[in-house]
Amino acid sequence: MSFEFTLLAQDGAARLGRFETPHGPLETPLFAPVGTQATVKAMRPRDLRELGASLLLANTYHLYLRPGDERIRDLGGLHRFMGWDGPLLTDSGGFQVFSLSDARRIDDDGVTFKSHLDGSAHRFTPEQSIAVQENLGADVIMMFDECPPPTDYEYVRRSLGRTHAWAERCLAAKTRPDQALFGIVQGGVFRDLREASARFLIDLDLPGYAVGGLAVGETKPEMHAVLELLHPLLPGDKPRYLMGVGAPEDLVNGVLRGIDLFDCVLPTRIARNGAALVLGGRINLRNAQYADDPRPVDVACDCYACAHFSRAYIRHLVKADEILASILLTTHNLHFLLRLMDDLRKAIRKGTVGEYASEFLTHYEIRDTRLDH
Amino acid sequence: MSFEFTLLAQDGAARLGRFETPHGPLETPLFAPVGTQATVKAMRPRDLRELGASLLLANTYHLYLRPGDERIRDLGGLHRFMGWDGPLLTDSGGFQVFSLSDARRIDDDGVTFKSHLDGSAHRFTPEQSIAVQENLGADVIMMFDECPPPTDYEYVRRSLGRTHAWAERCLAAKTRPDQALFGIVQGGVFRDLREASARFLIDLDLPGYAVGGLAVGETKPEMHAVLELLHPLLPGDKPRYLMGVGAPEDLVNGVLRGIDLFDCVLPTRIARNGAALVLGGRINLRNAQYADDPRPVDVACDCYACAHFSRAYIRHLVKADEILASILLTTHNLHFLLRLMDDLRKAIRKGTVGEYASEFLTHYEIRDTRLDH
Repeated sequence: MSFEFTLLAQDGAARLGRFETPHGPLETPLFAPVGTQATVKAMRPRDLRELGASLLLANTYHLYLRPGDERIRDLGGLHRFMGWDGPLLTDSGGFQVFSLSDARRIDDDGVTFKSHLDGSAHRFTPEQSIAVQENLGADVIMMFDECPPPTDYEYVRRSLGRTHAWAERCLAAKTRPDQALFGIVQGGVFRDLREASARFLIDLDLPGYAVGGLAVGETKPEMHAVLELLHPLLPGDKPRYLMGVGAPEDLVNGVLRGIDLFDCVLPTRIARNGAALVLGGRINLRNAQYADDPRPVDVACDCYACAHFSRAYIRHLVKADEILASILLTTHNLHFLLRLMDDLRKAIRKGTVGEYASEFLTHYEIRDTRLDH
Repeated sequence: MSFEFTLLAQDGAARLGRFETPHGPLETPLFAPVGTQATVKAMRPRDLRELGASLLLANTYHLYLRPGDERIRDLGGLHRFMGWDGPLLTDSGGFQVFSLSDARRIDDDGVTFKSHLDGSAHRFTPEQSIAVQENLGADVIMMFDECPPPTDYEYVRRSLGRTHAWAERCLAAKTRPDQALFGIVQGGVFRDLREASARFLIDLDLPGYAVGGLAVGETKPEMHAVLELLHPLLPGDKPRYLMGVGAPEDLVNGVLRGIDLFDCVLPTRIARNGAALVLGGRINLRNAQYADDPRPVDVACDCYACAHFSRAYIRHLVKADEILASILLTTHNLHFLLRLMDDLRKAIRKGTVGEYASEFLTHYEIRDTRLDH
């Protein structure tokens, strides 16, 4: 049955699961590559399949503005439009709209904003977000929420009332039975607000729960504390989605704390800046030290890029601003994260996820995070 | 034996041939995609193989400047560097250097020029061009020639003396037995000069002959007249290469006049401008008329792009400046030309190339050529 979530194994808080969607089952925990404008940048759908991607994310705000959600609906929906017959997830547009800090005005009914493309005025309400997401037709859609600054208690508390009212309006507005509407737990870094948000949304009996408002400025211990607080509160038989998180160490730490779904532009964005994820941390191929380096990007990797090309060649492509640089580094970075998730799933099945995580986090050195932005 | 050229069939002036190289045999007539900076833009080597590309071209001028020919030599040569184990051809750098009209000075010994990358001063002589091409290590290398304005008789006549002297110096400088040095017939649109140039180079007994200085401003009848003049003059057992030509109608007309090899940036460059080659002529996906068009780019095509995506989707990608637009349109355009060459080879074998060419040229409408540049 669609949207059923089955727990196949548990290892501590880490969960191995299977989530049914109208476009096939998903094995969790998983990482979803981001296709903001209905394409994962520099990848063809067949490349993503070959890499083992299962769920893709697309952005409602971008597709609403261009090419338009009604156009995509009339062309058969987002799956057909972008040539992806596997499961898709759309966000609500909220995060993007709130990020337009100088070009939006929030009220209790919704948000008025200016397009980043042409400055034209638009308005999103919970009902409008759901209507756009129904036109797009992803398998999983998200409630329209406010994403407040995570450490301003008074702001977060007031924002939570609005987000919860919007959650009820999204649920009331939803009409398609072939889409699952996920709730988004907000509450910043505050235990009482996170708990209140979780309890409110659990009462709505939604098919999945996202953790929003993290990876936006709080510390890692604060992020972990929120996940540890929510783990026993959220229903065990519903998938849990940590939005916008994709650094390797955060994936590992999220899985250890019960998260099933992740998405992030990190692997694809840093690829286009010349950076590669490797077990030793992260390297930037733009650096002169790689100019004569005949080794592959990652000697431990068997992706297409590492099997065929040297660091010296990829550095040349990066310096020469060649599209193939983006193709090869995106291939490698997605392979790195998708293989990591595969390894985590295997470790959960074997009951060794704690050891696997310790080993990984010991080798994976966090550095050069300025490249993310 | 390497560089042996075997004529398998003839149909009028059109030739079906097999050209042996150290990296495998080539079936001619063929079109070689251009990988200026050691990559055919937006394509991986495996994509090119899948499309049926056999010979690739790379540019000596660009690779000399970046990443440097000695670096490529030290990394194992151009084949290994770019991950292409099939045949490669490098030009001499002459055409690019002469195109730097404000940043170069020609004398009888060579050309001094300024890098387009950083303005630094460099000098190419025939010996230097051969040395760079030997470092790169392509299967076919080209003599260093001057490419004069094709319709200025006096200039072309004087330039020819220099080009012929340089041809002898290139031949004397060449040391690698695993590379074939092709001569380049110059002479603009002038019958006496073309004939003199052909006879001079034939006396040098080279393994192949290029026709240079065409597709640079002369009319189509002038181009055809040069090819028809050279056809009976050039030795039948050596491959003939029409440099820088790749418009579909020019490929067909070149094959009808005995040409075996072609190269051009046209299919890849127009792809990055949003244009697709189709049997009806050429279409630009940027145009608003395709915004809601559910048909593939070319209904008669079975390439990956046409099998999976609509004109509406590709237009969206073009407008959104997505890398996938370049990938899909490059795939389609190369498929179009490589299939055309395959069809021409089959028609020569069957003795029906005249009919095939008439049929093709009737359907293929030449329009919107501003997109080439």
